[in-house]
Amino acid sequence: MKTVLITGAEGNIGSRLLQNLAGRYELRALTREPVPGLASTVADVADLDAIEPAFAGVEAVVHLAASASVGTPWPEVLHNNIEGTYAVFEAARRAGVRQVVFASSNHAVGGYEVEAEERLYHPRAGIMLDQRTLQRPDSLYGVSKVFGEALGRYYSDAFGMSVYCLRIAWVRREELELPDGLQGIRWPPKDHWISREELRWRLAAFWLSHADLAGLVDACLRAENIRFGIYYGVSNNPLRFWSLDNALADLGWQPHDAAPLPGGDATLEQ
Amino acid sequence: MKTVLITGAEGNIGSRLLQNLAGRYELRALTREPVPGLASTVADVADLDAIEPAFAGVEAVVHLAASASVGTPWPEVLHNNIEGTYAVFEAARRAGVRQVVFASSNHAVGGYEVEAEERLYHPRAGIMLDQRTLQRPDSLYGVSKVFGEALGRYYSDAFGMSVYCLRIAWVRREELELPDGLQGIRWPPKDHWISREELRWRLAAFWLSHADLAGLVDACLRAENIRFGIYYGVSNNPLRFWSLDNALADLGWQPHDAAPLPGGDATLEQ
Repeated sequence: MKTVLITGAEGNIGSRLLQNLAGRYELRALTREPVPGLASTVADVADLDAIEPAFAGVEAVVHLAASASVGTPWPEVLHNNIEGTYAVFEAARRAGVRQVVFASSNHAVGGYEVEAEERLYHPRAGIMLDQRTLQRPDSLYGVSKVFGEALGRYYSDAFGMSVYCLRIAWVRREELELPDGLQGIRWPPKDHWISREELRWRLAAFWLSHADLAGLVDACLRAENIRFGIYYGVSNNPLRFWSLDNALADLGWQPHDAAPLPGGDATLEQ
Repeated sequence: MKTVLITGAEGNIGSRLLQNLAGRYELRALTREPVPGLASTVADVADLDAIEPAFAGVEAVVHLAASASVGTPWPEVLHNNIEGTYAVFEAARRAGVRQVVFASSNHAVGGYEVEAEERLYHPRAGIMLDQRTLQRPDSLYGVSKVFGEALGRYYSDAFGMSVYCLRIAWVRREELELPDGLQGIRWPPKDHWISREELRWRLAAFWLSHADLAGLVDACLRAENIRFGIYYGVSNNPLRFWSLDNALADLGWQPHDAAPLPGGDATLEQ
């Protein structure tokens, strides 16, 4: 079994992956809290000296550790996402790690969504972003994801590492359920209020199921001949506006789940 | 006259701009050493509190301050280029500055050159990179320039600032002359040795004359309706492989100088 180090393994996405990839890979964790039952290194991800031992003997890294909120202020973006991502790629290079899966985000291109307002995920808006779409971050968080993709491209080109950047959309702890009593959320890129009803529409665009997430990461770890790629991590939702074509072509991966349309399929006939 | 703050005004590019833009703009400097005869703020560019006073009353910023060597190691890239560029954009936003010209670099897409080896600037190679070409940095320095472009895009989208990213190629103190006794240079992206003869070929692709540099920056500062753009800063050289089309369309700018082909125009007939 391939030895895979997961950074940020204690987080929302990391804990899903640990469940879904267990038994298929020899998993290790780089975290801020030990993960019970797993070989864990506890360190600040931005501390290169402290994290380096965790990479010994590792064949692939799944780099999730980051401040994951769109509204993260600059000091945390700088430390956790920029310095942390540099430290992970550099530690991987020094240890001879051959594959790095980097958790990028749809917020690396979220500016298109902000510009289009809600049109982008209306039925038949006709807009489809793909891996050739120019980066357009909607936040400092999004800027840090563009940075990570660029760093990954450099490490791939310069050191022969295989790097897969996954623009992960919306992985929810509760899958498609919205918590009882939730009225809505703030959306930092425009400081909008998004109602419970609008959240259902967004899920019909953005949702990535736990099973599809694990399938995509697994497909990267099994890929043989890809040196660099940018892939959208999203289920096959009816209002999806990100292309999955290159994930199928490069990795043989396609999602199996799909969020429902609010109001049912009849909505698309309007 | 428009008040323009130039960061890194003491450097190679900054000192050319000061000469060429004097009299057309009210110039100020943000530097590490005072510039004689100019209103100068001396501060570490990454120190937001220290640089903020320099932005008061400024209408446009030309952000040049950075570690400018392709081989710059990570700690300096992080401090000078990443933290410094964030501090400049944020200080500009707080002061209500309307325009930022950001000195990016051809190294933001230098990976295409590394991949193509010397073919890219051979006669009629048929390759032309433009503003839609995906970022592909050839160095940590190049990664920092991708970061700066992404940050500029975010500040433009989120705060209505006009941002012009100039992928400046090769501005030389001595214009086209190579110093006597120079045998060649190291090229950090591949740690290649480049001979004096090869340098002449590269100049025939990469050169940006002092006059063309000033003309391009001036065109940005005069632009009325551009919110964001990426432009190549290169003279109209015979082996140029970067498009100038969008600079002409957006800014009405085109270069007036061109480096000669080694061996003369007959080379192109081979």
